[in-house]
Amino acid sequence: MSSRDECLARDARDPLAPLRHQFALDRVDAEGVIYLDGNSLGVLPRSAIDRIASVVSDEWGSGLIRSWNTAGWITLSQRIGDKIGALIGARPGEVAVADSTSVNLFKALSAASWAGSDRPHVISERTNFPTDLYIADTFAREHGKSLILVEEDEIRSQLDDRAAILMLTHVNYRTGRMHAMRELTRAAHDAGALVVWDLAHSAGAVPVDLHDADADLAIGCGYKYLNGGPGAPAFIWAHPRLTARMDRENWRPPLSGWLGHAQPFAFDPYYEPASGIQRFVCGTPPVLSMAALECGVDTVAAVSMSALREKSIALTELFIALVEDRLTGHGFTLVTPRQSDQRGSQVSFAHVGDGYAIMQAVIARGVVGDFRAPDILRFGFTPLYTRFVDVWDAVERLSQVMTSGEWRDQRFSIRAAVT
Amino acid sequence: MSSRDECLARDARDPLAPLRHQFALDRVDAEGVIYLDGNSLGVLPRSAIDRIASVVSDEWGSGLIRSWNTAGWITLSQRIGDKIGALIGARPGEVAVADSTSVNLFKALSAASWAGSDRPHVISERTNFPTDLYIADTFAREHGKSLILVEEDEIRSQLDDRAAILMLTHVNYRTGRMHAMRELTRAAHDAGALVVWDLAHSAGAVPVDLHDADADLAIGCGYKYLNGGPGAPAFIWAHPRLTARMDRENWRPPLSGWLGHAQPFAFDPYYEPASGIQRFVCGTPPVLSMAALECGVDTVAAVSMSALREKSIALTELFIALVEDRLTGHGFTLVTPRQSDQRGSQVSFAHVGDGYAIMQAVIARGVVGDFRAPDILRFGFTPLYTRFVDVWDAVERLSQVMTSGEWRDQRFSIRAAVT
Repeated sequence: MSSRDECLARDARDPLAPLRHQFALDRVDAEGVIYLDGNSLGVLPRSAIDRIASVVSDEWGSGLIRSWNTAGWITLSQRIGDKIGALIGARPGEVAVADSTSVNLFKALSAASWAGSDRPHVISERTNFPTDLYIADTFAREHGKSLILVEEDEIRSQLDDRAAILMLTHVNYRTGRMHAMRELTRAAHDAGALVVWDLAHSAGAVPVDLHDADADLAIGCGYKYLNGGPGAPAFIWAHPRLTARMDRENWRPPLSGWLGHAQPFAFDPYYEPASGIQRFVCGTPPVLSMAALECGVDTVAAVSMSALREKSIALTELFIALVEDRLTGHGFTLVTPRQSDQRGSQVSFAHVGDGYAIMQAVIARGVVGDFRAPDILRFGFTPLYTRFVDVWDAVERLSQVMTSGEWRDQRFSIRAAVT
Repeated sequence: MSSRDECLARDARDPLAPLRHQFALDRVDAEGVIYLDGNSLGVLPRSAIDRIASVVSDEWGSGLIRSWNTAGWITLSQRIGDKIGALIGARPGEVAVADSTSVNLFKALSAASWAGSDRPHVISERTNFPTDLYIADTFAREHGKSLILVEEDEIRSQLDDRAAILMLTHVNYRTGRMHAMRELTRAAHDAGALVVWDLAHSAGAVPVDLHDADADLAIGCGYKYLNGGPGAPAFIWAHPRLTARMDRENWRPPLSGWLGHAQPFAFDPYYEPASGIQRFVCGTPPVLSMAALECGVDTVAAVSMSALREKSIALTELFIALVEDRLTGHGFTLVTPRQSDQRGSQVSFAHVGDGYAIMQAVIARGVVGDFRAPDILRFGFTPLYTRFVDVWDAVERLSQVMTSGEWRDQRFSIRAAVT
């Protein structure tokens, strides 16, 4: 892949190329923006424009309270849950959509703590996404446990007779490194621990098979590779062996809200958990955001995950090869694993000291990636809408930023509130 | 008020009448629907149509990740919180918008439990909204406390030396009865207990002054009288004496998510709570639903709450008078207090055995109220958009339903999934 023309040719013969038309990228394209941040916020599905307008004007505006039935609002959680489930190896009825990733992680840890042993350790990676660590740390403190933070290569050695729960994000948000879900789950089980997987950077990005991995609980995010819109609701899954036990023992989740009640409209003063995963639905869901999420999930649902994965690997390999070829000596160090089976759908380079300023300069040239403190430049590659020529052009612009030295411009060194 | 013409005349001279134009009620009116369910789901503000379309197409579609800064997504929680705060007697910076009412109640109970005594009782009303009772019951069990459910007239006698937390909904969802917030708060404080108020049926409906009442914590709902759209995010408030203590003691809320961190974008692996109410923001908020909520709150924000209250009382008094005058002998019993200072902005009648079928028949005639098991017919009166002539017409149709006996029609006796 040594020229822009070759990239264009590759796009021309890419069988997934038409999928890009699912998205409202006209203005983004017209502005010359190359969006490599779908791992943070996925782009807008065209279908969401009309769908949201209809939810607002027809369902809310005209149908009003009747739309809980007539427009199926009451079934959104399960309906979208089933669609997400199909992407992550869960069966119909096993996934609920509700609340945020953080809140769902709290529910999942509560379930794992209830179902698991009395051992004192919750183990996670020091570089896991902070909200996971914050939720787990507070949860552990309140339940007489300790959160043990380790480096990636120390995980297995921590799986000893003090390990109650292993909580990992499948694909690391900073490095893009992907864990071997099946092998780590087995190692945890062998040690007598349960595993909670965060699929924030996996769902819709890489093939996941929760049943094949024999995972215990999983949660994930709706607004990254699922294209569900800013702050889209999140999802939660539990293995049916766990939900069956919850049913048998009538287990109450800690956030026992009315939509997780067996008969929410009986308005009984006493809580009776709904069966299965439904008990994890707590309060009334934000319907507008749920509808957008459904449009986002639908953009992925019709596609073969293995075909998506193949293109994802091709995109990330191309990016790595081009950066390393064209930017030798500019101080970039590849952080993402070089082996594709250990990589999610993003590529991160470290640039010590200057990462922030460089990313700002790159964004000013219309390549939207993002920066993660202290030194990581992240680039997400969503195979549904990222083209090979986008990769070429992004590296070209990065190269211009570095060779011109424009990133040293004062305005790029000021830290924004959100980076 | 003895004729429809008198109601029309009253509307004609109502200074609040123009406020109705804030709402997209054209289709509702064209269908002849009289919507008396704003206490369950408020109607659509006209401004939300364009605002949501712009959030979808411009902010999400075009601005993409940059909109966290450029479109102010990151400040939505505090900005909307301040607007809600002005309606409930809270000061700027004291209210956060996040998550659902149920989840926020869990946070508020956690804070009250931390700030309060080690006593064993959480006290609430047996007829409180079920999700409040479910959340509180589970919370109490997990914290070595008991939820004590009492009738309204037993509340004060339960405030003994076992009482840690009094948790009440200011206006009861079934009966429309409004508690004396100031007096009950003082009684609880005198007994050494803290008070958590649920303002679900108060915010935007009746004047509330949390500081004047000296309340400890409060939560509330965005989609009822605040017109924030289906499943709109909820809010939480804590008295500054409590948040000051949280700051001093570096208190961690149980749902310690990244947007409640002192420096969310530092991506530090260790949790450091944000100061004040901000620590109660947990995960990433659902932006589309947040934007709709802001439009809804804006419909109330410019209005004098005392003028709204005056009209609300006039509407509910008219409804009570007309029903009792025209439907004598049809088995309706007024459940809502007759004294206006004990009433929220709704009126409930009980009709033992037949309440469900009657409400279905009334809805079939285009008067949308709702039914709450086992026998309550609820009618909400939102003074922002309900007219005096709507009250007249609603009673006229109810009268037709009762005198014709059409509610005995088979199709009305079948229970729907959502009532």
